[in-house]
Amino acid sequence: MPVAQAKIKPRADDYAQWYQDIIQHADLAEPAGVVKGCMVIKPHGYAIWEAMQGDLDRRFKATGHKNAAFPMLIPMSFLEKEAEHVEGFAPELAVVTHAGGKELEEPYCIRPTSETIIGHFFAKWIDSHRDLPLLINQWANVMRWELRTRMFLRTSEFFWQEGHTAHATHAEAEEEVARMLDVYRDFAREMMAMPVVRGVKSAHERFAGALETLTIEAMMQDGKALQSGTSHDLGQNFGKAFDVTFQNAEGEREYVWQTSWGLSTRMIGALIMTHSDDDGLVLPPRLAPIHVVIVPIYRKDEERDAVLEAADRIGAELREDGLRVEVDKRTGMKPGAKYYEWERKGVPMRLEIGPRDLEQRAVMSKMRLAELDERGRPVKEVLPWDGLGVEIGKRLDRFQEELYERALKMREDNTLLVDTWDDFVAAFEGSKSSFVYAHWDGTTETELAIKEATKATVRCIPLEGEGPPVETGKCIKTGEPSAQRVLFAKNY
Amino acid sequence: MPVAQAKIKPRADDYAQWYQDIIQHADLAEPAGVVKGCMVIKPHGYAIWEAMQGDLDRRFKATGHKNAAFPMLIPMSFLEKEAEHVEGFAPELAVVTHAGGKELEEPYCIRPTSETIIGHFFAKWIDSHRDLPLLINQWANVMRWELRTRMFLRTSEFFWQEGHTAHATHAEAEEEVARMLDVYRDFAREMMAMPVVRGVKSAHERFAGALETLTIEAMMQDGKALQSGTSHDLGQNFGKAFDVTFQNAEGEREYVWQTSWGLSTRMIGALIMTHSDDDGLVLPPRLAPIHVVIVPIYRKDEERDAVLEAADRIGAELREDGLRVEVDKRTGMKPGAKYYEWERKGVPMRLEIGPRDLEQRAVMSKMRLAELDERGRPVKEVLPWDGLGVEIGKRLDRFQEELYERALKMREDNTLLVDTWDDFVAAFEGSKSSFVYAHWDGTTETELAIKEATKATVRCIPLEGEGPPVETGKCIKTGEPSAQRVLFAKNY
Repeated sequence: MPVAQAKIKPRADDYAQWYQDIIQHADLAEPAGVVKGCMVIKPHGYAIWEAMQGDLDRRFKATGHKNAAFPMLIPMSFLEKEAEHVEGFAPELAVVTHAGGKELEEPYCIRPTSETIIGHFFAKWIDSHRDLPLLINQWANVMRWELRTRMFLRTSEFFWQEGHTAHATHAEAEEEVARMLDVYRDFAREMMAMPVVRGVKSAHERFAGALETLTIEAMMQDGKALQSGTSHDLGQNFGKAFDVTFQNAEGEREYVWQTSWGLSTRMIGALIMTHSDDDGLVLPPRLAPIHVVIVPIYRKDEERDAVLEAADRIGAELREDGLRVEVDKRTGMKPGAKYYEWERKGVPMRLEIGPRDLEQRAVMSKMRLAELDERGRPVKEVLPWDGLGVEIGKRLDRFQEELYERALKMREDNTLLVDTWDDFVAAFEGSKSSFVYAHWDGTTETELAIKEATKATVRCIPLEGEGPPVETGKCIKTGEPSAQRVLFAKNY
Repeated sequence: MPVAQAKIKPRADDYAQWYQDIIQHADLAEPAGVVKGCMVIKPHGYAIWEAMQGDLDRRFKATGHKNAAFPMLIPMSFLEKEAEHVEGFAPELAVVTHAGGKELEEPYCIRPTSETIIGHFFAKWIDSHRDLPLLINQWANVMRWELRTRMFLRTSEFFWQEGHTAHATHAEAEEEVARMLDVYRDFAREMMAMPVVRGVKSAHERFAGALETLTIEAMMQDGKALQSGTSHDLGQNFGKAFDVTFQNAEGEREYVWQTSWGLSTRMIGALIMTHSDDDGLVLPPRLAPIHVVIVPIYRKDEERDAVLEAADRIGAELREDGLRVEVDKRTGMKPGAKYYEWERKGVPMRLEIGPRDLEQRAVMSKMRLAELDERGRPVKEVLPWDGLGVEIGKRLDRFQEELYERALKMREDNTLLVDTWDDFVAAFEGSKSSFVYAHWDGTTETELAIKEATKATVRCIPLEGEGPPVETGKCIKTGEPSAQRVLFAKNY
C-alpha cells in the first residue's frame, strides 16, 4: 500500500490534524468517502479491535453473559414504543424503505442500538423468575447518521458490543449496571493503560430511555474528556414498552428490570489520544497486534543469509514464548525507513540484528518511547539471546505499566478544583480543557448555561472515591446548593 | 426460557419439520418474525458459530490473511459497474433511501456481498507489484432479501466471512482460490466431521461476476446436497470495473487478478443435517459449546452437599484439562429431564454422579450416540476419577472421528453411478435424492432441462480424485459427448 509521505503534524500545532495523521500514518483506518460518515478499518486498526474484543469477551463470559445475534433491521414502529428512546434516536436513523424490488409496507431502520428489538424477544423468552437473570451480549455494527464525523470517535456506522440483561428486582439490575461499569474500568486500566473516572451521567446526558446512565470518562492529551463506555439502568421502561413480564415466586406477574451497556470502536480513538506522540501511534503491549518487530541489518550479500536465518529463528522462538512478532525482511528498504514505519505503527519494541550481534549472540533492542541520550539518540539496550523471551516480556510489562502511570500523571497534572466562575471560565478559555471538579446545582438549565458560556459539560457525577473527597458547596454558576463537586470538561 | 413441550418429529416422517424441531429443541435460533426472513441466533447456536469462527480465523491468518472492516452500505451505482454482478444481486437488495431525516441523493443498498465496495478501496491501496498479493478477510453480516427462507440455510440477513484478495497474475489468483477451497475442506473434515466433494460450479451456478466458482458440497441425511463454502476466481472483472491496477516490475500498469471466498452461518444448518438424529442435535466435540455435562444425582438432603461438592470439583478439574464443562445443579428438575434436555442440545458426553460414585471414586458416563444394550437401554461406562480428563479426551476424539466415518458411510451408501436417463429419473423420484455421478454435455440448456424434469442440478464438476475415476461418456439427457461424470443432486 502507498506509504504516506507527509510528516505527522505535531500535537502542539494542530491537535485535530495530529489525530488524523496518526490514523493515516499508522494505517489504522480511512474515511469511506463514498459512504457518508463511514470508515474502513484497515488491518492494523482492526487487529487492535480484535484484541479488545477478545479480552472483553472473556470478561463478559466470566461474569455469566452469553453472546447472541439479533436482526440488524428494526421495524420503525418498535422505536416509537418507548417515547424518550424514539425522541433520542429518530433524527439519526438510516431507513430501509425498499427490499426485494418492492416498497415495504412498514419501513425498517438499521439498528442504532438494540433495546427495542431485544425487548421484543425477551418478552417471548422470559416467563418465570427461573428464567432470570437473562444475561445476553451482542457484538454488532450499528448505524447512527452523524453530520460531523471523526474516525473512530463518531462515525455513522460503528462496531460495538451491547449487553442486554433482564432481572427480577431493581436491586439486581443496579448491581449488574455497576458490575459492568467495573468491567469497563478494569479493561481500560489493565488492557488500555488508561485511567478513567467512574460516575453518573446528568439527566441531560443520559441514554434515551434509561433511568440512569453510568459512564467511564477518560482524559485525552488535549485535556478533553472521552466517554469510553456506558452502563444503563433501564428500570422497567422497556419492560413496559415491550411487555416483558415474569411470574414471581408468589405467582404474580411483574415487569422485568433491564440493563444495557456498550463499548465501541471509539475506544481505538481513546487509545490513540491517550498514548500517542508526535512520532506516531503508541500502543500498550496487551493490545498491540505486534509486540516486537525484528529488523535484520546487513551490508554485504555474504552477511545476508546468516542474519536472516538468525532473525527468523529468534522470531520463531519468541512466538513460542507467546509474543506477537514480525520479522521485517523487505528488500529495497533501508533499516532506518523500517524503524520509522514501525514506530509510527506503535510497535512497542524493536530488535535490530546484524553480523556483529551474531558473534555476540545478542540483539540490540529499543522501546517505542525510549529516552534520548546526551547526544539526542534513543537509548538502546543489548539483550543476549539466552532468555530473550523472558527479558522482553518483563520490558513489555514495564512498558504497559509506564504508559498507565504516564497517562495518570497527565490527568493529575490537568485536574483542577475550581470554586469561582472566573477561574472556571479561564480553565476553558479558547481551546483549553482540563478535568475541573466544581459545584453544580444539578439542573439541566444550569448545565446548558455553563455549556453555552464555556463549551464545558458535566461529564459525570463521580462515584464515591473517584473524584475529590465529597463535600457540599455552592454552584459555580448560580450559587445554589450543591451536594458534591462534579466533573466538568469539554468532550468528544 | 420456556421449554419446548412437543416432541421432535422423526426424520422419516417429515424431514423439513424435523430440521425445524431440532433448531427449536436445541434452542439454537428462532425466526425473527417481525423482521421478514431474518432470524435470532440464540446463545447455544451462536456459541457454535463462535467455535467455527475461531477455528476458521486461525486458518485464514495462518495462510497470511488479515481482517478488516468495510462499510455495510454500498452506493447503488457501485453494483452496476459489473454487469453480471448487478444482474445476479439486484433482485435481492435491501435499499436505504432515507437517513438522518432526509431523502438521500443516491440510495445505498445493504451489502449482499462486498466485491464492489472492496474493489473501490483496493484501487486506492494498490499501486505497485510490491503491494501484492493483498490478502483481506472480513467477518460481517450481509443482506439478501429472500422470499422462501429457512433458518440458517437461507435467511435475509446472515453472517459470514468473505475473503477478498488481489494478485499480480492469474496463476497466483488460481492458487489462492484452490488454497482457500482446501481450507474449507479441511475445516469441514476436521472440525465439522463432514466429508465434502470439491468441484467446479457449472456456468449457471457460478457467482455473479466470477470466471469460475469452486465449491465444497456436502450430503445431508435426506440425500440432498448443501453448498458449504465457495471460492471464486474473479479474473480481472472487478479490477476493470473499479480500475484496480498496479505497476508491474517492468513499469507497466496492469489490472489485478482477484479472488473472493465465503462461508456462512449456513454451516450450522449443514452441521445439524449431517449428524443429528430423532433425539435432537448431535455435535462434533470440536465445535460443541459444551463437551461434557455433569448431572449430580441425590435423593436425600444429606447426600446433596457431598454430591454437589464432588460434581463441582470434577467440573473444575476437567476445565483445567481444557474441556468445556457444564455442571447442571438446577433444582426442582429430575435427572431424567436434564438428560433429555442435554441430549437434545447435542452435548457429546454426560457424566452422572451420585452417592455410590463418591464411594467408588468414579462417575457413570454416557456418550450422545451410545448404543443400546439388549434391554434397550443406552450403554454407559464407569470411569474412575483418576485420569478422568484424559479418558474423556480420548472418547471425545473417538466420537469426533466416528461422526465423520458415519457421515462418510451415509454418503457412500447414497452415491450412485448412473448411465441411463430412466435410472437417473428414478434416483430423483418424489422427494428422493442422492449423489448421482452421471455424464452431462456441459450446456446450461441441458442442465436446466434436467432440473425441470427431476429437480436435480449439477452440484459440481468434481476435481480430480474427488468423484469416481475420470472417464469420457455420453450425456445422460442428450447423448452428446461428455469429458467426465459430474455430481448431480437436489440441493438446499
